[in-house]
Amino acid sequence: MSEQARVLVAGASGFTGALAAELVWRHPRMELVAATSRSDAGRRLGELYPRYRAEVELSELDLDAPPAVDAAIVAYPHGAAAPTVAALRERGVVVADLSADFRLREMQTYERWYGEHGAPQLFGGAVYGLAELYREELRAAKLVAVPGCYPTASVLALAPLAEKGLLTDVVVSAMQGASGYGRSSDDLVHFSAMTENAFPYKTEGHRHRPEIEQELAALGSAAPVAFVPHLLPLDQGELASCFAQLAEPLERDAVQALYRERYAGEPFVRLLDGPPNLRAVRETNECHVYVTVEERGRVLAFAAIDNIWKGASSQAIQCLNLMLGFEETEGLR
Amino acid sequence: MSEQARVLVAGASGFTGALAAELVWRHPRMELVAATSRSDAGRRLGELYPRYRAEVELSELDLDAPPAVDAAIVAYPHGAAAPTVAALRERGVVVADLSADFRLREMQTYERWYGEHGAPQLFGGAVYGLAELYREELRAAKLVAVPGCYPTASVLALAPLAEKGLLTDVVVSAMQGASGYGRSSDDLVHFSAMTENAFPYKTEGHRHRPEIEQELAALGSAAPVAFVPHLLPLDQGELASCFAQLAEPLERDAVQALYRERYAGEPFVRLLDGPPNLRAVRETNECHVYVTVEERGRVLAFAAIDNIWKGASSQAIQCLNLMLGFEETEGLR
Amino acid sequence: MSEQARVLVAGASGFTGALAAELVWRHPRMELVAATSRSDAGRRLGELYPRYRAEVELSELDLDAPPAVDAAIVAYPHGAAAPTVAALRERGVVVADLSADFRLREMQTYERWYGEHGAPQLFGGAVYGLAELYREELRAAKLVAVPGCYPTASVLALAPLAEKGLLTDVVVSAMQGASGYGRSSDDLVHFSAMTENAFPYKTEGHRHRPEIEQELAALGSAAPVAFVPHLLPLDQGELASCFAQLAEPLERDAVQALYRERYAGEPFVRLLDGPPNLRAVRETNECHVYVTVEERGRVLAFAAIDNIWKGASSQAIQCLNLMLGFEETEGLR
Amino acid sequence: MSEQARVLVAGASGFTGALAAELVWRHPRMELVAATSRSDAGRRLGELYPRYRAEVELSELDLDAPPAVDAAIVAYPHGAAAPTVAALRERGVVVADLSADFRLREMQTYERWYGEHGAPQLFGGAVYGLAELYREELRAAKLVAVPGCYPTASVLALAPLAEKGLLTDVVVSAMQGASGYGRSSDDLVHFSAMTENAFPYKTEGHRHRPEIEQELAALGSAAPVAFVPHLLPLDQGELASCFAQLAEPLERDAVQALYRERYAGEPFVRLLDGPPNLRAVRETNECHVYVTVEERGRVLAFAAIDNIWKGASSQAIQCLNLMLGFEETEGLR
Repeated sequence: MSEQARVLVAGASGFTGALAAELVWRHPRMELVAATSRSDAGRRLGELYPRYRAEVELSELDLDAPPAVDAAIVAYPHGAAAPTVAALRERGVVVADLSADFRLREMQTYERWYGEHGAPQLFGGAVYGLAELYREELRAAKLVAVPGCYPTASVLALAPLAEKGLLTDVVVSAMQGASGYGRSSDDLVHFSAMTENAFPYKTEGHRHRPEIEQELAALGSAAPVAFVPHLLPLDQGELASCFAQLAEPLERDAVQALYRERYAGEPFVRLLDGPPNLRAVRETNECHVYVTVEERGRVLAFAAIDNIWKGASSQAIQCLNLMLGFEETEGLR
Repeated sequence: MSEQARVLVAGASGFTGALAAELVWRHPRMELVAATSRSDAGRRLGELYPRYRAEVELSELDLDAPPAVDAAIVAYPHGAAAPTVAALRERGVVVADLSADFRLREMQTYERWYGEHGAPQLFGGAVYGLAELYREELRAAKLVAVPGCYPTASVLALAPLAEKGLLTDVVVSAMQGASGYGRSSDDLVHFSAMTENAFPYKTEGHRHRPEIEQELAALGSAAPVAFVPHLLPLDQGELASCFAQLAEPLERDAVQALYRERYAGEPFVRLLDGPPNLRAVRETNECHVYVTVEERGRVLAFAAIDNIWKGASSQAIQCLNLMLGFEETEGLR
Repeated sequence: MSEQARVLVAGASGFTGALAAELVWRHPRMELVAATSRSDAGRRLGELYPRYRAEVELSELDLDAPPAVDAAIVAYPHGAAAPTVAALRERGVVVADLSADFRLREMQTYERWYGEHGAPQLFGGAVYGLAELYREELRAAKLVAVPGCYPTASVLALAPLAEKGLLTDVVVSAMQGASGYGRSSDDLVHFSAMTENAFPYKTEGHRHRPEIEQELAALGSAAPVAFVPHLLPLDQGELASCFAQLAEPLERDAVQALYRERYAGEPFVRLLDGPPNLRAVRETNECHVYVTVEERGRVLAFAAIDNIWKGASSQAIQCLNLMLGFEETEGLR
Repeated sequence: MSEQARVLVAGASGFTGALAAELVWRHPRMELVAATSRSDAGRRLGELYPRYRAEVELSELDLDAPPAVDAAIVAYPHGAAAPTVAALRERGVVVADLSADFRLREMQTYERWYGEHGAPQLFGGAVYGLAELYREELRAAKLVAVPGCYPTASVLALAPLAEKGLLTDVVVSAMQGASGYGRSSDDLVHFSAMTENAFPYKTEGHRHRPEIEQELAALGSAAPVAFVPHLLPLDQGELASCFAQLAEPLERDAVQALYRERYAGEPFVRLLDGPPNLRAVRETNECHVYVTVEERGRVLAFAAIDNIWKGASSQAIQCLNLMLGFEETEGLR
């Protein structure tokens, strides 16, 4: 692989796309060739997000004549992402897709939650972009489906148990900041509506629930998952508080030992000896995990991430690093 | 009962005691005879809490010569509360105790979580101050144990199911704002530490868990409860997100009908047709409840309260209203 | 005047209109006959603002057949307000207008800052709705221009000096929360953009500057005013920090005595003996004022209000109380 | 100068000391030999500040046998700093002092605001650590007084005018987040007290006012400065909004050209073409400046910094870089 990769970020005006552009721009082995936006072409990234430093003007993406790049991060909404991904793949571009279009393994499930798929020929052809689980597959991948933010935290919180086939019942109480809502104009994310507030949402069913179930099952535990997300009055940060029943009871020490062994050497997973907090992972690609057993014997597993970093854009960089043959941690420390 | 009650608030410099003093001061049928504080005697309440309007100077409480009052709200830490409660009861004062000293029904459980009890002769002699469950008992009570904030929300979220003996397994993921931590000088509640942060705490066991289990069992469902509280970057507000397994599966409609029936006419419980939010209950004695069934069949029950209002001080007023023969809603609308 | 007034709130889906509807609904001597909205007709107020309790469904306002009311609060943007105000006045309705359409005394100034006026025949015919300055005029008024939020705070901070003709030079550094930006979908007020942020805005000229200058001049001090507003990461609250040069130097004691005398008996102005804070006035009609003299001899005058209460909607109620012959404080305590 | 400097941070448990330790630890050419704390010796830095990554345990500083270092950052309160600085200087250690002990040029002024000085023999012997003004002096300095946070922002906002002798009258309305209050246990900085709040403080005189006056005078404009600081509900960030009268009127273009010329090439000052915001400078050593002229002819100059970065700890690194012969920007990008 070359020393330097030329990279395109498509959809760079939203929260995750803009951050992806910023991270590519800062990356010592990536060159940000173009950052595109349908809605904000002509504006500088720093105009939209004064805290970013990338010196780039947003342009329009012409799929018939895209810029010559080695890799792309696509930050489009689901549905819109698939055709763009397909067009880029046809030109041989290595793609990390931030949408849900290539995360699910069953078309039926995809259609139920997201509607018609925009590039069915590619469905099933992506590697699930959780390096902690699929590191080797990612080194060979050309298309990666970057996981949803909630699945990232939930699956990392539970993977050591799931892999042993131990999970029989899972409750995930998840919470994240307003950036998870995207650059929306919804009344809900007006500062005046969110400050001093917090609330559960999508209580009748959230798209990330089947994704979490799918991944836990793929690891070895086909357990039912109850999932409720909450919105919190903060910007970036996400917590998955998981309550798990096991096939056989385990003592706290045994569970903690299992996690230590599983995550030894992981560059971005940090096992804590107490509950994690969101400020500690903010603007990092880290996932902080704490596991314990509560008084009635249920396992409690907590994972904290930055929802637009490890839960989206920096995780895309982590994947691209592997796909492009770079050090996995390059540009992320 | 007289037209007007003379009321003492003991421990009025902390968050819940100060609010209790403010609420008594505003109450059309209560007279705030004294608000006492060991640490801040001599200061005006408005100096400590500029948003309160009660015109009162904090004084010291002399238990040998307490002011002549009909009723008292005691807002001391557990342990310290019991002897003061006992001294006031001996003089015939009706007492609402905000501490944990009289909430539990088993001395063994009390001692495990709180240590030695300061007035064992009164243990077991209080009514649990949840008017929605013990209204008639409260009308005759002389001593009420105002419930913990988490039990208030959790039990109100689950009572209709608990009463039918339906609960077999309960997970409570609870969250509250910084006021729940009290007027502490702990680094954790410094604005700089909490803003843009959130975290679970007391994951190895929280004192409110046995209280929740006790109350659900008293209602008819002796189910194990897993309980994890979280601290959120807001001031006042608390959410209990409950995941319950039932003895027999119920459809969403049936569960919602059960709740409607149970809470019909309750002045402070409001059943919503969607998830509650914390801002809507802030600075009120209301509890907003929403119940539904998630995809895998588990009941989701949510309750939102203001942790220092319905979770403490305004609930004490609600109790005193009943104990003193006033309208239950007097001074709380 | 009748015991009870029938009141319409036009434009009740925005922040100030919705609050006006809520306040009218709670008012013991007002009946909320209709709350109208062009954009949200058919929705309940509590759906848009879960923390409000007014039981009212938003309707459309038909100016050809408006509901029969005694009084109206118009909460439209400037420009759109004037014709509606005119139509209501023609039917004899007493009007409190929250827009800027009737605040200025010179048409030229109005046109420079706001464009063409929508009801020039009424221009100049309103009383400026600051009861602390124009109480008697308000008792006789049929149309009141409720002051801008920044002028409310700034003028109340400086009025005692302005009335004596003492002000020769004024700097106002003002700051307010996100609610001042209105129910906008602007990226700026997304929670993710405002949290942990603060910034000056409209530094090249804000419409409230000429209004402040006008009112200080009307009181007796035609001083130049430099005005810079800032947006802060909070919902409701506004501070005017004023730095004033005087025609003749005054000692701190003399200035404070002047303020005490001027504001004695004012029901909603509270003179503090130290700097005000925003939490203390939140959700009240109060204005907290502190005045002192700094080391180099300049007067510092601070005023804190809730920008959508005393800075808009509750001030409209205060005005209507006077216009309708009610107690000035009715419904505001 | 050597390739690598051995550095001590004294007083590393407070906000600025802890950040200084973190920045030294990350610095490619500095080695964090010791981070000391009187109150928290034995605890790891990451325990106190989970978001920091420095792997260091706090130790006690024995001034009789301090660690062998090339340089030190002293983060003690004023008064306590001076003797420690003196002891380190005696051993030839290059020192950046974060306290006020060596900032002022007149002992009388120091004594009025801070009391008796702890090392009068060194008074007057420090370079004022604003590299944008004293770069050459810093290259030769052995002791630097890192400026106060408010003076940093205020002086950088006004320096181009001050140097031309143009300033005749200055008003500074400054505001900063809770971190400026330090790791205090004061009720004021409890999250519950600060959220949704903001207020001016030290309105009768703040220690940074004479420091600002001193520095503007040193640059050429001995103008009186009125200064009022405010506390805002955010963690890190500071804004100086300055209103200046000039000896001769200048047009906006002329003022902006003056600033462009003055700050051309400055690595950490960024001239904006509109008002700055705090989020854009958070966790950076940058100072964002905007200057304009308001309608009545007064110059408005705004400067935004992170109060514990450019306003304290990262500015100390910037100074040490110069003092140690490193690139000025080393470790700060």
